[in-house]
Amino acid sequence: MPEPKATNITWHEGTIDREARFKRLGQRGCTVWFTGLSGSGKSTVAVAVEQALHDLGRHAYRLDGDNVRHGLNANLGFSAEDRDENIRRIGEVARLFADSGLITLCSFVSPYRDARDRVRKLHEEAGLAFFECFVDIPLKVAQERDPKGLYAKAAAGEIADMTGMSESSPFEPPENPEIRLPTHEQSVEKSAGDVVETLKAKSVI
Amino acid sequence: MPEPKATNITWHEGTIDREARFKRLGQRGCTVWFTGLSGSGKSTVAVAVEQALHDLGRHAYRLDGDNVRHGLNANLGFSAEDRDENIRRIGEVARLFADSGLITLCSFVSPYRDARDRVRKLHEEAGLAFFECFVDIPLKVAQERDPKGLYAKAAAGEIADMTGMSESSPFEPPENPEIRLPTHEQSVEKSAGDVVETLKAKSVI
Repeated sequence: MPEPKATNITWHEGTIDREARFKRLGQRGCTVWFTGLSGSGKSTVAVAVEQALHDLGRHAYRLDGDNVRHGLNANLGFSAEDRDENIRRIGEVARLFADSGLITLCSFVSPYRDARDRVRKLHEEAGLAFFECFVDIPLKVAQERDPKGLYAKAAAGEIADMTGMSESSPFEPPENPEIRLPTHEQSVEKSAGDVVETLKAKSVI
Repeated sequence: MPEPKATNITWHEGTIDREARFKRLGQRGCTVWFTGLSGSGKSTVAVAVEQALHDLGRHAYRLDGDNVRHGLNANLGFSAEDRDENIRRIGEVARLFADSGLITLCSFVSPYRDARDRVRKLHEEAGLAFFECFVDIPLKVAQERDPKGLYAKAAAGEIADMTGMSESSPFEPPENPEIRLPTHEQSVEKSAGDVVETLKAKSVI
């Protein structure tokens, strides 16, 4: 261990709080929660929003199956209990990211209203903005897109409990989402723009 | 839902990657992991580092018992299995924060070498810098400080398994920490400065 060099650090009492972080970053941390059927375009829009925010000099981070399912939630399966715990943990992590000052973009099917509402409540109790973004397309369109081939597998009986395909695996649409994106009727650019405009209107950026 | 306004967003293919985030924030995301006995000064130093980084125009976020134990890890107890899962989840969350571009300051007793090494490995595999910061004071000093009154309770038999107090609850010191802070021999300012100097030396900031 080399002898550390002298620094000109002056420590003053008191912690850096949320407002100081928000001011430093030039934005207010928050969570945008994309919910919708598999194939609705949640991640596609989230990627476009991330790009748009970056172009505006803002700081965002995406949470999705790619970086959560194989890491934090690798020890969870697909039972009802584990699905609940999956969304609970993501909600808690999103709250931490929002508190840090980042615009947190979460893309998860998250079919159950109760689970989403718990994440909303978690943010509200912490005084953090939460935007539910319903990526809203008809099941038929999602089945036609089927980007991951999941609907075909479900139709062939290879996947049980595919969201939207049976009464036991419903998608419960948000009742009062802050944002609704009918991605079958508008471009990705338009959808991303809708999200960015909402963030502007709500003084996040 | 009001009609969204037009925006000048142009979406180009490709996601914003880690390097783009690091460049935008003007720093490289990483994790500083403070480990040491209860009362060693982990959180005190982390707070001072956060303050120093803020004064330098940098972006940090602290993870500690206050914002993790009552949230993400509220459903964990203190069994050996739960303690392992506690550190595992924190390590995964730290990795996400480091990936987002923030300088992540984690303060947890984290007495077991294996658990800390797993967090280190997680970062290394993801190509993210990890700095183990051993807040290194004698048990006797920690017991004298006893800021939370935990050692007194342990001595009175009110707390079992207090780290450092028995052979069954050892603190396993890091063998090759990037930073060692003997907080009983140097000021908080000096300790925070040591961390900041390491981050500078390693081109994080």
